[in-house]
Amino acid sequence: MQRLRKALPEGALLSKPEELRPYECDGLTAYRQLPLAVAIPETVAQVQEILRICEEVRLPVIPRGAGTGLSAGALPRKDGLVLSMARFRNILAVDPLNRTARVESGVTNRAISEAAAPYGLFYAPDPSSGVACTIGGNIAENAGGLHCLKYGLTVHNVLSVKIVTAKGNLLTLGAQGFDSPGFDLLALFIGSEGLLGVVVEATVRLLPRPPSSRLILAAFPSVESAARAVRLLIGRGLMPAALEMMDNLAIRAAEDFVHAGYPVDAAALLLCELDGLPEEVEDQIALAEDSLRESGANFLRLSSSEEERLLLWKGRKSAFPAVGRIAPDYYCMDGTIPRRAIPAALRRIAELSNAYGLRVANVFHAGDGNLHPLILYDASRPEELERVEKLGGRILELCVELGGVITGEHGVGAEKLDPMCLQFRAPELRQFHRIKTAFDPHGILNPGKAVPTLHRCAELGAMHVHQGKVPFPEIERF
Amino acid sequence: MQRLRKALPEGALLSKPEELRPYECDGLTAYRQLPLAVAIPETVAQVQEILRICEEVRLPVIPRGAGTGLSAGALPRKDGLVLSMARFRNILAVDPLNRTARVESGVTNRAISEAAAPYGLFYAPDPSSGVACTIGGNIAENAGGLHCLKYGLTVHNVLSVKIVTAKGNLLTLGAQGFDSPGFDLLALFIGSEGLLGVVVEATVRLLPRPPSSRLILAAFPSVESAARAVRLLIGRGLMPAALEMMDNLAIRAAEDFVHAGYPVDAAALLLCELDGLPEEVEDQIALAEDSLRESGANFLRLSSSEEERLLLWKGRKSAFPAVGRIAPDYYCMDGTIPRRAIPAALRRIAELSNAYGLRVANVFHAGDGNLHPLILYDASRPEELERVEKLGGRILELCVELGGVITGEHGVGAEKLDPMCLQFRAPELRQFHRIKTAFDPHGILNPGKAVPTLHRCAELGAMHVHQGKVPFPEIERF
Repeated sequence: MQRLRKALPEGALLSKPEELRPYECDGLTAYRQLPLAVAIPETVAQVQEILRICEEVRLPVIPRGAGTGLSAGALPRKDGLVLSMARFRNILAVDPLNRTARVESGVTNRAISEAAAPYGLFYAPDPSSGVACTIGGNIAENAGGLHCLKYGLTVHNVLSVKIVTAKGNLLTLGAQGFDSPGFDLLALFIGSEGLLGVVVEATVRLLPRPPSSRLILAAFPSVESAARAVRLLIGRGLMPAALEMMDNLAIRAAEDFVHAGYPVDAAALLLCELDGLPEEVEDQIALAEDSLRESGANFLRLSSSEEERLLLWKGRKSAFPAVGRIAPDYYCMDGTIPRRAIPAALRRIAELSNAYGLRVANVFHAGDGNLHPLILYDASRPEELERVEKLGGRILELCVELGGVITGEHGVGAEKLDPMCLQFRAPELRQFHRIKTAFDPHGILNPGKAVPTLHRCAELGAMHVHQGKVPFPEIERF
Repeated sequence: MQRLRKALPEGALLSKPEELRPYECDGLTAYRQLPLAVAIPETVAQVQEILRICEEVRLPVIPRGAGTGLSAGALPRKDGLVLSMARFRNILAVDPLNRTARVESGVTNRAISEAAAPYGLFYAPDPSSGVACTIGGNIAENAGGLHCLKYGLTVHNVLSVKIVTAKGNLLTLGAQGFDSPGFDLLALFIGSEGLLGVVVEATVRLLPRPPSSRLILAAFPSVESAARAVRLLIGRGLMPAALEMMDNLAIRAAEDFVHAGYPVDAAALLLCELDGLPEEVEDQIALAEDSLRESGANFLRLSSSEEERLLLWKGRKSAFPAVGRIAPDYYCMDGTIPRRAIPAALRRIAELSNAYGLRVANVFHAGDGNLHPLILYDASRPEELERVEKLGGRILELCVELGGVITGEHGVGAEKLDPMCLQFRAPELRQFHRIKTAFDPHGILNPGKAVPTLHRCAELGAMHVHQGKVPFPEIERF
C-alpha cells in the first residue's frame, strides 16, 4: 500500500471506509463488498506502475469504468484494489474521413457520439446507461443496446485498443483498418470482463447518422401474434434498426410512468424502428405495416415527428425504472435465444412465473432474441430473494435448452458463474482458463469473475444441457 | 505412419511422391515443398484421431482447404502431414428465419451462396477464388473480397465453428446469436491460419440479397484525382458495396484480356458499386456521380443491365491473370493503409518501382485501403526474384509507415514472417506465442507460419517502425 501511495499523486489512492463506500457495488446492487482500497490514476504510466506492483505482491485488481454494469463484474474484493479509470476522460481525435474516434477509456459512450455529431457521425452501440457508462466498461462487457440488431455489439464497432497487461506492459491490439495480421487479440479482449487487461485507450468506428428514422408501434392481442410478427418482419428481408417487445405488465408500468400513449390493454407491443434514406424508410414502413397487420396487430401508430419518435421510445427506455414503481424490487435477467424460439420461451417463462409465484415483466430486444425478463419481488422478505434466484436460474437454463446463451449484453461477472456451467463443457472451460493464464499467469486481474472453475461446475453436477438440445432442427419454412 | 493408416479408411492416406505432388504448394506457387504424407479424413472422429496420434508423436500437421491461399499458409513441411478437409463437403442446414447456414468446412464459399439463393439470401465475403476456396480456409485466413467494404470480412460473417484442437478435442466456439459468454474464442480463431485448431464445421450469417445493384465506372486523368474521389465518396456518407481502383498498367492489361470497354488512356479507374432498394440506389448514384465529377473524373459509365454490370466487373476480376499475360511472372502484394494515405502510397510505390527497375500494376480495394500491387518480373532471371522480394518488403514497410498493416486479406503464412517484425514489438509477439501455447502446447499445428519467433525478429534488427510514425495526425478536414 505504501508503494502504491508513492506511485500515485496526492488523493489518488482511497482507503478510508467512507471513501470506499461508493465503490462497493456496480449496477447489480444485490452484490456488495467494500474493497481494500481504490486507485484513481491519471496517466498510463501510473496504470502500468499499479499493475506492476500488484502483480509483484499478488494483490487482486478490479478494473472499473462508471460502475453501471449489471452482472457484478466490477464487484470489489476485500483483499483487492479497485482500479478506477474515471480520470481517463479525454477525446483524443475525431477523424471524419476514416470515420473513427480515438478516446481514453473513461470517456462516456454518449460523449463519443456527441463529439462525432458535428460531422454527421455517431457511435452505434447504445446501452441504456449511455449517458454514464464508459467505453472502457463497454469494451470489457461487449455492451449492446437497442440498435445492435442492425449495427452490432461493441466488438463490431471497435478497431483498436491500448491495454495494460497484468505485468504492466502496454499493448496495442487491432489496427486502424479492417484486418490485422496475427491472432485477433482485439476481439478476444472485447468482452473479457477485466480478466485479461485494463483498457486505457480505444479507437472506435463511427457511422453516418441515417437521414431518416421512423418508429412504428404495434399492439397485439397475444404474445404469440407479436412473436409471429418478429418472424415475418425478419423473414421478409427487413433489417429494422431496433425491434423491441414488451408484454402487458411492462406496457402498463411504462405507460403509468411516462404517458407515452401506449395501449394499456394490449397483450404485447412491438416497437420497430426503420432508418436510412427517406424513400428507403418509406418502402420499409409499408412492408413492415403489412407484416404487422398480417400477424394480427390490432393497433398501429407511426411516428410523424422526431418528438413523437422520442416519446414512443421513452416508454421503452424507462421500462426498468417503471417496473421498479410497481414492485419493491426487481431482478433483471439477460439471456438470448434464437428468434424462432421466442413464443416457446415466453410461454415457458409464464409457466415458471406461476410455479414460483413471482410476477415477471418482459421487456426485450426481440429482433436479436435478447430477453430481459424482470422478476418482481420484495427484498424485505428474505425467502423471496432465494426464490427469485432459483427462478432466474431456471430461465437461463431454458435459454440454453432452446439453443441460446446465458447472456445477451450484460456479461457474466460474479452473477452468472453457475449458468456458465450449463453453457460450456470442461474442454471449453479449460481453454478459457488457458487463455486467462496466457495473459495473466498469477490471476491478479478481476479474479473469480466471468469464468467458473472446473471444480465449481463439477459440484453443480449433472445440470448440463450443452448448446441446446436442438440447435438446428429441420429447416423451417414460412 | 502405421497408426495413421490404421485410423483412416482405404485410400485416405497418401504417401507416394506422385500422389503428394498436388499438395506441394498453395496459390503462392513460389514456395514449394513435398510433405511426408497427406491425410484425407471423412469424419470428425478421424480428424480427432489423426490429431491425437500426431500430437503424441509430435508430427507437424498442416491443415489444408482448397489450397487457394496466397501467403503459403498451407505450405507443407517435409517432416509434416498435410491434413486435407476436401471430403467435408456437406451443407447441413440453411435456416432462412435465423439467416444462417451450417456447413462442413470443405464446402466452397460459392456453394454456400448457391444453397442460400432460393431464400433470397447470400453469404457476403467473396474472395476472388470463391468458386474453389473452402469456408474452412476462409476462416483460417479471415478472407475478404470485393464486397467486404460494406459487408465485412469472414470474422464479421461467421457465428460459430466446431474445431478439433491439437489434442484431438472437439470444441464449439461462438453461438447462434450475436453475443456469447466467455472469452471470444471464435474471433480469436478466425484468421489464426491453422495454428490453433482445425475447423470441421461452421455456422455462417446469411444476408438478404439487395434488390438492386448498379456499377459506376469512372476514369481519371491522374491517380491523385481518383484517390480524391475515394475520399469524397466516403466523406459524404456513401457506403458503396465495393469501391475498386486500377491504374493504367492494370487497365490496359485487363482490357486487352476481356474487352470490358475500359478506357485504356485513363491514368486510373474507379469501379463503384451501389446496392440496396432501387430508390436508395438511385439517390446514391446521383451523389456518387457528383462526387466523381467534382474530383476530376473525365468519363463515367453506369451499368444499365445486369449483363453490363457483370462485364464491367469481369475486367477487374480478371486483372490478375490479365497482368500475367503482359509479363512472364508477377508477385501479388497485400497490405492495407488508411484511406487518407492512398495518394502518398501510390506516389511512393511509383518511386520504388523506378528505383528497383520493376514495373508495378496497382489493382486494389480502394474503399478499405487494401492495396494489391502486382510486381511484374521474369522468374527465369534469378536476380530479378531477389529484387522483387526486396521491393515487396519495401512496399510493406511503407504500409506500416503510413499507419497501415502488412496484410489485408491474404494472411501472413510462410511469406510474411519478416514483415510481422515490422508490425509488432516483442510484448505483442510474446502474447501471440502464449496464445499459441494455450491451444497447442507442443506446437504441432502449422508450425513456422503466421507468427515469427522473437529470435527471427531480433536478427532483423532495427527495421522496426511500430504502427506507423503518424498513426493519428491532426484531424483532417475536407
